[in-house]
Amino acid sequence: MKTVPVGVSARHIHLSEAHIAILFGEGYELKEFKELSQPGQFAAQETVTIVGPKNKMEKVRILGPARPFTQIEISRTDAFSLGVNPPVRESGHIDQTPGLRVIGPAGEVELEQGVIVAARHIHFHTSDADKWGIQDKQLLRVKVNGERPLIFENVVARVSEQFALDMHIDTDEGNAAGVKTGDVAEILD
Amino acid sequence: MKTVPVGVSARHIHLSEAHIAILFGEGYELKEFKELSQPGQFAAQETVTIVGPKNKMEKVRILGPARPFTQIEISRTDAFSLGVNPPVRESGHIDQTPGLRVIGPAGEVELEQGVIVAARHIHFHTSDADKWGIQDKQLLRVKVNGERPLIFENVVARVSEQFALDMHIDTDEGNAAGVKTGDVAEILD
Repeated sequence: MKTVPVGVSARHIHLSEAHIAILFGEGYELKEFKELSQPGQFAAQETVTIVGPKNKMEKVRILGPARPFTQIEISRTDAFSLGVNPPVRESGHIDQTPGLRVIGPAGEVELEQGVIVAARHIHFHTSDADKWGIQDKQLLRVKVNGERPLIFENVVARVSEQFALDMHIDTDEGNAAGVKTGDVAEILD
Repeated sequence: MKTVPVGVSARHIHLSEAHIAILFGEGYELKEFKELSQPGQFAAQETVTIVGPKNKMEKVRILGPARPFTQIEISRTDAFSLGVNPPVRESGHIDQTPGLRVIGPAGEVELEQGVIVAARHIHFHTSDADKWGIQDKQLLRVKVNGERPLIFENVVARVSEQFALDMHIDTDEGNAAGVKTGDVAEILD
């Protein structure tokens, strides 16, 4: 059986160096709050406020380290509340996405783009993928046996030497299935 | 193919006659705002505020007509926000569920119980169920081909002469699948 731990991602933001400097001050370095499942990635101690046309959300967690482009990942529920309509996208694919206003303690940024609903995906270390015969970008069917069992289709496989085995879904998906971080999913095919 | 229209239910409340009298005044009658898919059921013009230990939510829609017991149906996302932990239940099964405070224009009620996350289900008119060989309370697998296709397992069949064919899911489930009211689902088995 091909089992994978589940990680439920709450809304979060990845910041560029330039935006960290505006929001927190020139030369500011994010402080690690908690390691994440993917090697080198961390939840920062710092949070920001994001502001949409309808509502704002405070204490949105920053994930580090800094990235080339700022990206905000929210659930569809968050999107309705904020008043934006982001597409479901893989991380890094932010062309033609909406922006939001981001407020930090030292300044604020009006993003032109960067807001997505993250497409569910599984990180595979190359050794896991080889063992199970799974290719990078393959679409998988994955069963989650939570309080409300369901099968996710079109789950994107992402394979790298840098990755640790983990399935990433958002809070809408986690809540719909009744699962939380640390629960286990099964790859069907 | 056994296709069923999907209805995504936002948070809502069903009120008893006694609670309508407290919240809106003695002898008050709910006014119909919009018919619902099930015969005789309607969204009322009136809304209430619900208050939990962590947050409150305003403009929560009342569904009529009055019921023997007050029941609040919220998503898991709403539950985290309000600060309550309701079970996933079929409508009407409110034993051992948490309460919330409900505020109307004429008064307020502290519910002892009645808050649930509604178990996804399909209403079948007896003629639909007969045609497809489906029994009341049968658990079905249902595929939803939204932006993020998935298969819901353990979808409860509810069969009655009073029902119109409709699948009811909550906003977490609708958002996880990327579907909205009026989209179509397919019963697999």
